[in-house]
Amino acid sequence: MALILGVDPGSRKTGFGIINTLGARSEYVTSGVIRVPDTVLPERLKVIFDSITQVIEEYCPQEMAVEQVFMAKSAGSALKLGQARGAAIVAGVSQDLPVSEYEARKVKQSVVGSGAADKVQVQHMVKVLLKLPAAPQEDAADALAVALCHANTQQRLIKMASASKFRRGRIV
Amino acid sequence: MALILGVDPGSRKTGFGIINTLGARSEYVTSGVIRVPDTVLPERLKVIFDSITQVIEEYCPQEMAVEQVFMAKSAGSALKLGQARGAAIVAGVSQDLPVSEYEARKVKQSVVGSGAADKVQVQHMVKVLLKLPAAPQEDAADALAVALCHANTQQRLIKMASASKFRRGRIV
Repeated sequence: MALILGVDPGSRKTGFGIINTLGARSEYVTSGVIRVPDTVLPERLKVIFDSITQVIEEYCPQEMAVEQVFMAKSAGSALKLGQARGAAIVAGVSQDLPVSEYEARKVKQSVVGSGAADKVQVQHMVKVLLKLPAAPQEDAADALAVALCHANTQQRLIKMASASKFRRGRIV
Repeated sequence: MALILGVDPGSRKTGFGIINTLGARSEYVTSGVIRVPDTVLPERLKVIFDSITQVIEEYCPQEMAVEQVFMAKSAGSALKLGQARGAAIVAGVSQDLPVSEYEARKVKQSVVGSGAADKVQVQHMVKVLLKLPAAPQEDAADALAVALCHANTQQRLIKMASASKFRRGRIV
């Protein structure tokens, strides 16, 4: 059993979501969207850092996952996104949470079954997988999706480790 | 009298420098370069955040200044720089330091007298202004330069406020 915090950092809106994983099953715990005020950069980053810190202190997740970014539309938007990512990731590592990054393609593949899925498909599958009464907001859904991707990846690694141990047992 | 922390964030090297301002004079306190290890992003950002936090805890500056960035060579380098900036700025705001940003042009203008000055000229003038026996390393010099720019700006604001008060006094 592990509580996983997924974060979808953005300079205007940062989504977060926590799931509780029990073996191959995942349960919804909480999610939300941090709306970053239109003020000077240091204060904007403080809002992201403080809000994620508060979520961590309240729910005590053991792991954190964020979407990996390779490309952005422009240098300007990449800088803004980078600053928001820096503030969100530091909120995790400053509380000693291990932070994993996953490519957007891998997150979609893991949740929808296709690396080319769109936002609406991700929202829909997050709703289905976590048995929610309605689809979460876009940024919250993306955050829950990366948490689900992390849970699936961890589960697969555990299975692989068990299989490898079994094989080694037969050889020896 | 105020201790000002200047930071020059970078994804591979982050410079820092502290000066002590006494009216129009500035004294050197400390400076250095944080070398970011070649590891996964969350650990790299943790090194920047922890190192700046340590400098703040050790020297207790009252203000922090960083160079403002508008443009980067590419979206990829902007993202990396943004993440490093996010981690460094959050180290300041999470300890309730007011953080000011200054355009590179303004920093050079303030320290060298020309907004188009090169790195070597900045290093040389930082050495002269702070009466150092040798020029600091490039990243440390840039950090001290932004701290000096902040000190000059604050000093000018204080003078403007006094002049305005004096004028008001004569009118009334």
